Amino acid sequence: MEVFFLLQKNKLLVIPLGGLGEIGKNMTVFQYGDDIVILDAGLAFPEDDMFGIDLVIPDMSYLLDNRDKIRAVVLTHGHEDHIGALSYLLREINVPVYGTKLTLALVECRLRENNVADTELIPVEAGDEINAGIFNIGFIQGSHSIPDACGIYFKTPVGTVVHTGDFKIDQTPVDGKHLDIHKFAELGDKGVLLMMSDSTNAERPGYTGSEKDVALAIEEEIKNAKGRIIMATFSSNVSRLQEAIYSGCRLGRKIAVFGRSMSNVIGIATELDYLQIAEGSIIDTEEIKNYRDEQLLILTTGSQGETMAGLSRMANNTHRNISIKPSDTILIAANPIPGNEKSVSKTINNLLLLGADVIYEKISGIHVSGHASQEELKLMLNLIRPKFFIPVHGEFRMLSQHAKMAEELGIAKDHIFIGENGNVFEFSSDSGALTRKVKSGRVYVDGLGVGDVGNIVIRDRKQLSQEGVVIVVLTVDKENGIIISGPDIVSRGFVYVRDAEQLMYESRAKVNLALEKITQKNMRDWSGIKSVIREALGTYLYEKTGRKPMILPIVTEV
Amino acid sequence: MEVFFLLQKNKLLVIPLGGLGEIGKNMTVFQYGDDIVILDAGLAFPEDDMFGIDLVIPDMSYLLDNRDKIRAVVLTHGHEDHIGALSYLLREINVPVYGTKLTLALVECRLRENNVADTELIPVEAGDEINAGIFNIGFIQGSHSIPDACGIYFKTPVGTVVHTGDFKIDQTPVDGKHLDIHKFAELGDKGVLLMMSDSTNAERPGYTGSEKDVALAIEEEIKNAKGRIIMATFSSNVSRLQEAIYSGCRLGRKIAVFGRSMSNVIGIATELDYLQIAEGSIIDTEEIKNYRDEQLLILTTGSQGETMAGLSRMANNTHRNISIKPSDTILIAANPIPGNEKSVSKTINNLLLLGADVIYEKISGIHVSGHASQEELKLMLNLIRPKFFIPVHGEFRMLSQHAKMAEELGIAKDHIFIGENGNVFEFSSDSGALTRKVKSGRVYVDGLGVGDVGNIVIRDRKQLSQEGVVIVVLTVDKENGIIISGPDIVSRGFVYVRDAEQLMYESRAKVNLALEKITQKNMRDWSGIKSVIREALGTYLYEKTGRKPMILPIVTEV
Repeated sequence: MEVFFLLQKNKLLVIPLGGLGEIGKNMTVFQYGDDIVILDAGLAFPEDDMFGIDLVIPDMSYLLDNRDKIRAVVLTHGHEDHIGALSYLLREINVPVYGTKLTLALVECRLRENNVADTELIPVEAGDEINAGIFNIGFIQGSHSIPDACGIYFKTPVGTVVHTGDFKIDQTPVDGKHLDIHKFAELGDKGVLLMMSDSTNAERPGYTGSEKDVALAIEEEIKNAKGRIIMATFSSNVSRLQEAIYSGCRLGRKIAVFGRSMSNVIGIATELDYLQIAEGSIIDTEEIKNYRDEQLLILTTGSQGETMAGLSRMANNTHRNISIKPSDTILIAANPIPGNEKSVSKTINNLLLLGADVIYEKISGIHVSGHASQEELKLMLNLIRPKFFIPVHGEFRMLSQHAKMAEELGIAKDHIFIGENGNVFEFSSDSGALTRKVKSGRVYVDGLGVGDVGNIVIRDRKQLSQEGVVIVVLTVDKENGIIISGPDIVSRGFVYVRDAEQLMYESRAKVNLALEKITQKNMRDWSGIKSVIREALGTYLYEKTGRKPMILPIVTEV
Repeated sequence: MEVFFLLQKNKLLVIPLGGLGEIGKNMTVFQYGDDIVILDAGLAFPEDDMFGIDLVIPDMSYLLDNRDKIRAVVLTHGHEDHIGALSYLLREINVPVYGTKLTLALVECRLRENNVADTELIPVEAGDEINAGIFNIGFIQGSHSIPDACGIYFKTPVGTVVHTGDFKIDQTPVDGKHLDIHKFAELGDKGVLLMMSDSTNAERPGYTGSEKDVALAIEEEIKNAKGRIIMATFSSNVSRLQEAIYSGCRLGRKIAVFGRSMSNVIGIATELDYLQIAEGSIIDTEEIKNYRDEQLLILTTGSQGETMAGLSRMANNTHRNISIKPSDTILIAANPIPGNEKSVSKTINNLLLLGADVIYEKISGIHVSGHASQEELKLMLNLIRPKFFIPVHGEFRMLSQHAKMAEELGIAKDHIFIGENGNVFEFSSDSGALTRKVKSGRVYVDGLGVGDVGNIVIRDRKQLSQEGVVIVVLTVDKENGIIISGPDIVSRGFVYVRDAEQLMYESRAKVNLALEKITQKNMRDWSGIKSVIREALGTYLYEKTGRKPMILPIVTEV
């Protein structure tokens, strides 16, 4: 045991707590001896089978158990899947957080919303290097769908680790900030022990398009539009907003912004100088009535078909300020994130039904991904030429494709690790291995509850969602066990009761019949009686309806 | 009124009851005077927000109201979205059904499953013409992802109607049956009053690939595989199964088939001569143990990630006969139907995790669509050159794109109708108009119930699925209104009760407090009391948990 720890002391531990085998909740632990640094703390959006869950965060037990060792959190960029779990971490452990200005401003919003105070937020710029425990940590300019996204390197006693963060290689980024290929090349030149790289688009051949192409496509659409333009996109895609605002202004339009998160980001980005907006070009939402249609460019949320967001409300004709008209041109400058296809489709259909001209990704060039495709991933691998490689940020299918590419580029198969969350990878200067597993997994956030909804509750919600609930209420004299009221049957989500009187009547008869048998047997064990009721009623209802509602017998003794 | 009916007598009515503004449940009514013919009777699969619904069929009220006029059902092909609602129609109205051999064989299965007897099923071949009432109806060879898919024309007193059915223009169909361009051209030449055409891929530029390309890609994969091959595809894609079987046999493999629907289709298709299988090439599933891995090609269901289907079970390691091994090559020769992306992805991930080599659409050429892309749709429009055009089979966004194309090709805008289900289009030999609407919509099938689950039940299921249910049980003395038992609180799908004792305890206290106030006011109106309980408990639970469970107060008087 002594020896084990002694050995371990000279090793770098890399422990992904999220982002492997999934899209989202990215979080990785780097540990050397008694020093831990956390890279990103993201959330994931719930899957369809996580009924009623609002969001999912990584299980942070390992960090809570090692809280004294944590020196810092470093952040690659300000997307929710990289910062959305930070409030939950900082609520438990107060530790300094490093990130670029925009990232920290977005973090600050979330911390305020979640009532987390007193966090030390330390701004850095790409090119900066900081110290945290034994680590020297550097920020490298990246390019992605939010400004100031960074790659990160860790100089450790056993060698350098490079984590790309989310990236693509945009040759014509509209903010002029190119991914710092030189720095990646320099690191590669000097020798990299371990590389971790974004696998989101590892299945996509070729190169990802440039944000500049989108800017041109949007400008073209604005030129062609005869009436109002309403554009929805990701709030955090500041470059895209910038280009739309530029084009709008150039073409004689005033900009109005609808949707809280978009106003928020535009406010923050303007204040921090990520967005340049000429004075007088943004107008108050109330002012739009003072302008003619062809003088307006409306920016709004709802590019994912989110029920409560701007564009969805417009599509449903329930927006407070905007009624869609046939002369409107609507730009949906986004792709549906997997799982949102249907809701985005509904939005498009409804807008078309209102007569508007709708321009969306499938029929135009007004969106490109923020993630590198295969050729860019290969270029990055060739620049860094790491000894060891862990593909990150992706489902297993994407990690596998990324690993395949790395192998084709000459990295030894046993130096490539397709990992799972909770895996502990140990590295010395010339060896690397998966050695063990720490506790990891999903923690569900539902309303104010964090982790209080588990598999049993989810399973019940699933059954309720499919078949509803049938409640059987019975009052029994506790002296003699005689039924003095009931059985009464109440159902929800099962059948429309007014049309099913006969069914309810016969259900009561079935329960009564079962109860008679029980009485004859002189049964007094309530849990036994309940299961007899469940059985009798369940069988009957399945025969009659082909459905298996949750049956809840409730027996009251008086 | 008299005049109206008189006029109407000389008009052709076209009434889509399904398939407009949606993918699925295709069904169209053609009526002239007292003669009705129904084209297709399909089902749709439920959307995410149709909790617990098994399938959706068109509202057929119009047909039930006009049952005496119905002369025939004609079917384009045997896919569920074209024949799946037929049992429900035939249960109410016995009417002869025309279709090609394979279509009718698949219909027969469904009718048997749904206990519908005594239907007259009349086989036709492409090229045949039948009479039904005043209509002469012809079947035109099409090409699609199931054999013997047909386009249909109706010769009516006011002119010819052409309905393409589902189609693509496959220049190298593997069964050698080309879409009968000559017939479409001939009809176009003679003059077509109305064309209705498949819009599924109206958003996709270019041409759809040929099934031959898929056949070559599959053969290549079979050649490269070192161990077993397991191929999942749509059961009904007989051509693809044929090619896989050919290639497998040629390359020295025996074929084993897993999955009820696939065995079914292979049985039927072989019997009807749609599938040619050399004797001895298909082996019993039990026999696979007698062959080496590289001698086996396993065909299975589950290409959509359906929980209970073959491939999903293999991926979850719960298949009775097959355990996946790293030497296996798995071909998923299908694309995920919208809504199934996540479940297909889960299957792929799990198979990769088991070490198998998985070949799927995104990274290979082993699937092509069965529906025409834009250039094919334009060709069809140019062949038919109809006076009037109704794009069908698609969401509004697809219908719109299809309509745009028709306009570009020179069809007058006011001769193109983007319709909704239930619209009544009336045509004379030189005019066409949307005149009114008949009852139409979705009928939900849930278990054995058809139409007994409506919006209220669905709304309840939704709330239950998100937040669960909290039941408050109270027994009251009916003489004096004094509470003699309770309040007891039972919850499901809300919180894990063992970890939430305090919450449950305080909930009871809150309800008691509310009840005390009621007693002071001497309130005896139960529905009032219930809403006081709902209000008090709801407010408390929302404060504590941020959730809004369904609260069901149940008061028993004894």
